[in-house]
Formats: sequence, structure tokens, C-alpha cells
Amino acid sequence: METHPLEFLFHPRSVAIAGISPDLRSQGREYLLNLQQFEFPGDIYLVNPNYAEVEGIPCYPALRDIPGPVDYVVSCVPATALLPLVDDAIAKRVRAIQMYTARMAESGLSEGQALEAEVGRRAKQAGVRLIGPNCMGIYYPRGGLSFRLGYPREPGVVGVLSQSGGNSAYLEYLGVGRGLRFSKIISYGNGVDLNEADLMDYFADDPETRVIGAYIEGAREGWRFFQALSRAAAAKPVAIFKGGATATGQRAISTHTASLAGQDRVWDALCRQAGAVRVGNMEELSDLLLAFSLLPPPSGNRLAVLGGGGGYSVYTADTAERAGLVLPPLPQGIKLRLKEMLPQVWSLVSNPVDHSVVPDPLQYLEVARLVAGHPGTDLALFNLDPAWYLDTPGGVTRVLGVVDGLLNIAKECGKPAAVMLAYSDSLEPWRWETAAEVQRRCVAGGLPVFLSIDRAIRALSYFAGYYRSAVRRQERKEGVDL
Amino acid sequence: METHPLEFLFHPRSVAIAGISPDLRSQGREYLLNLQQFEFPGDIYLVNPNYAEVEGIPCYPALRDIPGPVDYVVSCVPATALLPLVDDAIAKRVRAIQMYTARMAESGLSEGQALEAEVGRRAKQAGVRLIGPNCMGIYYPRGGLSFRLGYPREPGVVGVLSQSGGNSAYLEYLGVGRGLRFSKIISYGNGVDLNEADLMDYFADDPETRVIGAYIEGAREGWRFFQALSRAAAAKPVAIFKGGATATGQRAISTHTASLAGQDRVWDALCRQAGAVRVGNMEELSDLLLAFSLLPPPSGNRLAVLGGGGGYSVYTADTAERAGLVLPPLPQGIKLRLKEMLPQVWSLVSNPVDHSVVPDPLQYLEVARLVAGHPGTDLALFNLDPAWYLDTPGGVTRVLGVVDGLLNIAKECGKPAAVMLAYSDSLEPWRWETAAEVQRRCVAGGLPVFLSIDRAIRALSYFAGYYRSAVRRQERKEGVDL
Repeated sequence: METHPLEFLFHPRSVAIAGISPDLRSQGREYLLNLQQFEFPGDIYLVNPNYAEVEGIPCYPALRDIPGPVDYVVSCVPATALLPLVDDAIAKRVRAIQMYTARMAESGLSEGQALEAEVGRRAKQAGVRLIGPNCMGIYYPRGGLSFRLGYPREPGVVGVLSQSGGNSAYLEYLGVGRGLRFSKIISYGNGVDLNEADLMDYFADDPETRVIGAYIEGAREGWRFFQALSRAAAAKPVAIFKGGATATGQRAISTHTASLAGQDRVWDALCRQAGAVRVGNMEELSDLLLAFSLLPPPSGNRLAVLGGGGGYSVYTADTAERAGLVLPPLPQGIKLRLKEMLPQVWSLVSNPVDHSVVPDPLQYLEVARLVAGHPGTDLALFNLDPAWYLDTPGGVTRVLGVVDGLLNIAKECGKPAAVMLAYSDSLEPWRWETAAEVQRRCVAGGLPVFLSIDRAIRALSYFAGYYRSAVRRQERKEGVDL
Repeated sequence: METHPLEFLFHPRSVAIAGISPDLRSQGREYLLNLQQFEFPGDIYLVNPNYAEVEGIPCYPALRDIPGPVDYVVSCVPATALLPLVDDAIAKRVRAIQMYTARMAESGLSEGQALEAEVGRRAKQAGVRLIGPNCMGIYYPRGGLSFRLGYPREPGVVGVLSQSGGNSAYLEYLGVGRGLRFSKIISYGNGVDLNEADLMDYFADDPETRVIGAYIEGAREGWRFFQALSRAAAAKPVAIFKGGATATGQRAISTHTASLAGQDRVWDALCRQAGAVRVGNMEELSDLLLAFSLLPPPSGNRLAVLGGGGGYSVYTADTAERAGLVLPPLPQGIKLRLKEMLPQVWSLVSNPVDHSVVPDPLQYLEVARLVAGHPGTDLALFNLDPAWYLDTPGGVTRVLGVVDGLLNIAKECGKPAAVMLAYSDSLEPWRWETAAEVQRRCVAGGLPVFLSIDRAIRALSYFAGYYRSAVRRQERKEGVDL
């Protein structure tokens, strides 16, 4: 297999941070700290004419003063100093520049727009590739590259491209505690050179990336992007969150990455035709990436729901139907088994299973095993309704026993299974600590945890929907091939 | 003002718990503990022929053996023992029976349905009022009545009727930490006698209730309910979460409260015509009740959003427009002030304010003050994007300083103001502890806290929408009166 032309971005022999400052709160310092903590194996150079050294590392006045070769430049200089830096980088035969530098096209001012265009022009002419401006750059744990200390050292299978640095940071907050791990994250901001089409094309081929996630505000090259997306989605699951679906959102984009958002309906059609899943926000993006990366493909969209009280079960059922999932009623065989097991209450057990009908933990686990094994279902959701799992007499020990039992059942049933664990609304320490321990066990057991019914159902619905569409696309394709 | 005919329910001279058990995990024990902890001022009697005493309190073999008068009976007896208990209660001239007892109509079995009907018939004939069966009963902190230890002792202004005991418990989990307080909560289950029409009628008149919330699975008396709802919504804000919007949800209802869910579109029209707000789930119900109970009425639906990074601001803008809120651009006067204050970045400041453009805390507070004071807006939302408020260098101290500043600005701007504080997705203790402290300060400052952009925007949109409709209804009414 040929190496993708952008592969070099992730393997620089050396990185220079231009515009480094000794200020601990500056982004330059942050980049340096990241390279150190993630153990970047190459040379690190610092550039700033105002300092002799930062953190004991010598500072060169300019790029050209660096003795060795420089493959990759991180620019933290102000916009006014960017053009000279680009010229220096070209002279130094740098291969790529990542620009944290902002106040460019997104300023809305003509000088910023002109500067960004000129930087793009000069770099293109010289064959230097650009990431940004107005971006955070590359996280690639295998290569020791990072822009956020909170990212895990351990790599995973999810590749992410994001026009927003904040949103790519938010993904850590949203997913890492629940087991989300990344092959690479690229925050590319205004995308004057490398844009969503280039990066999607790269991830389509990247053998380290099994699932792709994207936050995009606009596509500079619509047709190229559509082709890259189609190719990527044919190879692996792709989830996209598109910012700027409304006029108000598009106005906000103009001061963020200055992208042209494009019509919302066009984006719907584009994703559908390409076979990518379009999600509605960052929470959904994290949830779906988690499902794609942790679960095997489902055989359909029929769901068994274990747990939740009566009102909660009604809501889960409503939400599932609205999201296009099917909750099959219990078949005669399971009903007869239930009648033997629970002569008093068997008629109250349904799908979803209202756990308040079977409050005894051992009985409940028996019922859960029976219903999760329902041969007419393709997915299982274990619903840890907080009023139940946190607040029952007997408390934590009892809860953890049930959770361990449910994790076993999830494995036994042989279906993609997930856990709904709502804990966000109560800040009392004892509740929070129980939730944390329950979540740790679920993550260790390899199950995705979703933090509300809405999020659980939506993630499973997108997840099942992707594979249904993929099967249909495959069938169509085979039809054409005949 | 006349006393409502149901007022007596909240002021029993004595309560008898029938079917009490010494088992610490039994619901009877739980009711007893609640009466004790909430300091019920009247007499408490226990009834169970199998025990001489429970927790040192004598157990009577039957209701008729109790020496004093009994106003209110809590029934924890199994369904098979319910009819004799009802007959005893009638003989004892009890005024109301609350039935925790379940396995009635919701069992789907003909004997359960017949039993429930017979209980209803006998009580009605004797003039004894029934709450339930299959319900948790009454929480009324002023009167020392409760069914859940986690409920606050301190009363509030929100009255709640709920067909689900689990959902009425969930409201505590969802709202109490954020400042939600209740006048009364009534969990009424299958509603064989007192139903949603009776309870809505009661809350419409209740001077202790300024805001009404409801979880309803079906209306037994549609027209009466509509009339009560219209009367209630004309007097005070009413928020309703209706379970069973889909066929799957309605199937789940059949084993929960055996209610007839009714057509979903009919419920939409009913709420709209009555002037009540129909919300989509329990989280939204808690959020809207919080807004109604903490905030003054807004003058319109124009929102100023302070904070959130670039991508987050785009999403907030998209979500607000979709929810029918307007984010007015900054007027010339504010832009000129910004240009003076921030000559480098003023053109990047918009509504929403992307805080990453103004990372200095003092400058940010100045900008927030200016934009919150925007005379063309009616509401303010302070968006504490987690990647920013938790993860900046300098950490907690800096964050709390900003939060205190924002709370002052919220007061100064004289508009209904709310805080978006997302913390649900990361379980790391240091983040969680900061979030807890931020939330405590917001709650102490009287601001509602919402736990995601979606929830914040939806609550503010319902909130503003209710008052807009109320003004229109009032205008129509005045037009008719002329």
C-alpha cells in the first residue's frame, strides 16, 4: 500500500516553535510542554528574537539561525510577523507550518483577509503545506505530537478533523473518561491550504484510523470534499457534525473560521449520499464515535431495553420509536419462562423491563438475562436510571453487584450492548462517586456509556442506521457489478 | 378566598400506615421514616396483624382497632388485602386512602382491573377519596408529609402532579441541587379516583403554588382536564411532560399505569389552547420549572450569549435560532466601545461572545458587561464552556473570580439571566469539584443552571414562549371584553 502524500505531516524529524514566550499561560509554552510530555522523539527548536532561552532550551532569533533541518514549524507569532516567518520557513526548506496565529480572515477586516491569502499563495508556490491559520494543529500520540495535555498518551482508532480547536479539545472532555481514544486529531481552523477535503482523503486511507469524526464549518472545495467523504465512508464509519446550520450560526462562523457554511439541506444530502452520518452536536459526535469504536456491527435495529422505572421506561420507548429503533414485544417463550419465575408480576414485565417490578437484584438479573437474550433483538441497552441505581437502600455494594451482573449478561448475549448512566444532574459527592465507580467498571468491560436516554437512543439509532445504509449501498453496488 | 375541596388532603390529623413491615427495605418502613424525619405533627399509627410493634411503635391488627380518629391511610398491603382495608377505612370514617398497593389495572389481568374498579366504587359510595393505586402519594414539607427522604425540608413554589413515582423522585435528582423547591408533589399512579383533572384544578387555586409541573400518561376525563388546565395556565405557568407519545411508549404505559394515552396531536393542541407549555422529557421539565420559579418574566425572546469558544458559539447560535430565539447583532454603539477597549480584536466580538477572543479575565468581564447590557436583548445566557472554565491555566481561583463577576453582571443587567454549566461528561474529581463550587455560587446567586447548551436554550425558549403566548391571550381576552 502506497503512503498517502500527507503522511509526512505526522513524522517530522524536528519541530520549531516560533514565537515561544516564557509566559506559562502562553500557547507557545503549552506546545513545548506537550512535545515534552508526549515524548516527541525528534529535535525541538525554539524561536524568538526577544529571549536567549525558555525553560533552559536556547531560543534562536530566527528560523534560519537553527543549525539542523526543520521539518515542521508551529507558528505562535502575531499576524503582523507571519509573512516574514513564512519566507524564512521557505528558505529553510520547512515541509509544513501549523499556524496557531490568528486575527486573519476571521477578523472580517480586509487586511486580515489579504494577509491570509498572501501566506497561502507564497507557501503553495514553494510547496510548503499549511495547517490553519487560527488552529491548534496536530495530536498524534504515536508520534509524540499534541496540543492539549489532557489528551491520552494511549492511541486509539478514531481519527478526527476539526475546524474548531475548542471543539477538538471538548472531545477529550466528552469522551476520554468513557474510553474514547484517538489515532490522530487535526484542528485546522481557517484551512487556507489543507482543508476538510485533504484531511478526509488522508483519513480514508490511514491504516491507523478505523473510525472518522469531523467538525466542519464549511467546505472550500465542495466536489473534492464529497468525493473524499464518499471514499472514506465506503472504507470506514464517518460521523460529521456541521456547524452553521442556521443564519445565526453562519454569522457566528464569520468571526470564527470565516468559512462559507453552505446550505443546510445541501449538507444533509451530501452526507446521506456519501454514506456518512450527520450528527447534531459535539455530544452526539462523541457518543457515536464511542459506539463505532467499541461495538461490533449490529445485525439490525431491534433493541432490548433492560431497566428504568415505569415512567422512565415509557420515555425510553417513546424516544426509541421516534429515533427509528424497534422495541419488539416479548415473545411467547420468554413470557412463559417469566410466568414460571415470577408468578405474581410476570404480566408486568415487558420490553423495556421496568426494574421496579422486579426489585430483588438476583431476580432482576435473571429477568435481564432472559430479555437480553431475546432472539428477535439486535442491540441491548442497560438503563441505569439514577433514582434506582444510586438511591436504593443498601446502596453502592448492591448497585455494583448488579452492574457486574449486567456486564456479564452484555457479554453473554453476543449483541452490541450499551449502558445508560445518567449522573449529570446531582452534584452530591456520594452519588457522584458511585457513578464514577459504575462508569469505570463499564469502561473496563468495554461497554460504551451514554449519559442520558436521549443520548443513548440517538447514538444507537445512528449506529444501527449507518450499518443498515452500508448494507444497502453494498447491495446496490453488487447489483451494478453483476 | 374559599378553601379548595381537596385542601384537607394535606392536613390530616393522623396518618395510619397499613401493611407496615419491620423490613428496612420495605416501602412501609420508608413512609414511617419520612413522617418522622419531616416531623409530621399529627398522630402516626401502624397497622399489621403480624407484628406487635415496629421500631418501638405499637402495631394494631386492623384500622378499626386504632383508638383515635384516622384521617389518612397509607396502604402498603398487597392487592389481595386491599378490599378489606377499604371496608375498614370506610367504617373508621377515614377521609382519604393513598394506595402504594400495586398489581391492579396495570397488571393487564382481568382480576386486577376488576379489583381496582371495585375499590373505586366502594370508596366513591362512601365519600372516601383515593390517591393511586400504584403510586407514592404526597410530599408536602409544610405539613410534614413525604415519600422520599431526599426531598428538601424547605418548601418552594413549584407544585407537581405525576403519574409516575419514579419520575417524581427523579425531579429531586434533577432539580434540587440547582435550587428547585416544591410546594407539593403528588404521585397519583393509576388515578382511579383523584386524577389529573382534580389535581390540576387544586393547583390552579393553591396559593402556595406559583408554578405547576406535571407528568401525565393519560387523561381519564379529557374535557374536565382541559378546563382545569386552562384555568390553571391562566393563573400561573404550567409545564407538562406527557408520556406515551408513540405506539411503543403507549405499550409501555399499559404495564405502568394502564392509562389511555390519547393521540399525541390532541395533546399538542390541548396544551397549546389551554396555554400550558408541553415539554419533551423530565430534564426539560426540571429546567423549565427552575426558570419559571427563579426568573422574572422576560420582555421578549431576544438573547445575549456571553462566553463559549468559537465552535461552541456557532452551536449556541444554531440551537437558539432553531428554538425560535433571536440573537441580535451588536449595535453600532457597543461596537465603537469595543473598538476603544480592544483595538486588536474588537471585530471578532459578536453575539455570542467567543471568550477565547478575550482570554484576559478582567477584559472578558468588561466585554460581558457591555454585551449583557445590550438594550436590544431581553435575556442573558452565561455560557461556561467546560474546556474553558475548567481547563485554563490558573485553574479554579481564576474561574471562580470570573463566575463571581458574571453573577454581578447578571444582576446589573436587570434581565432574566441563566448559566450554562456543562460538567456531566468528565468524571475526574478536580473538574467535578470545580463544577460543584461554580454551581453552588450560581444557585446562591439565584440563577438557574442548565447542564448543556441544548437544555439551556430549550428552557429559555419555552420560558420566553410562555410569556409571549400569555400576553397574546391576555390581549385577545381584553379584545373580547371590550
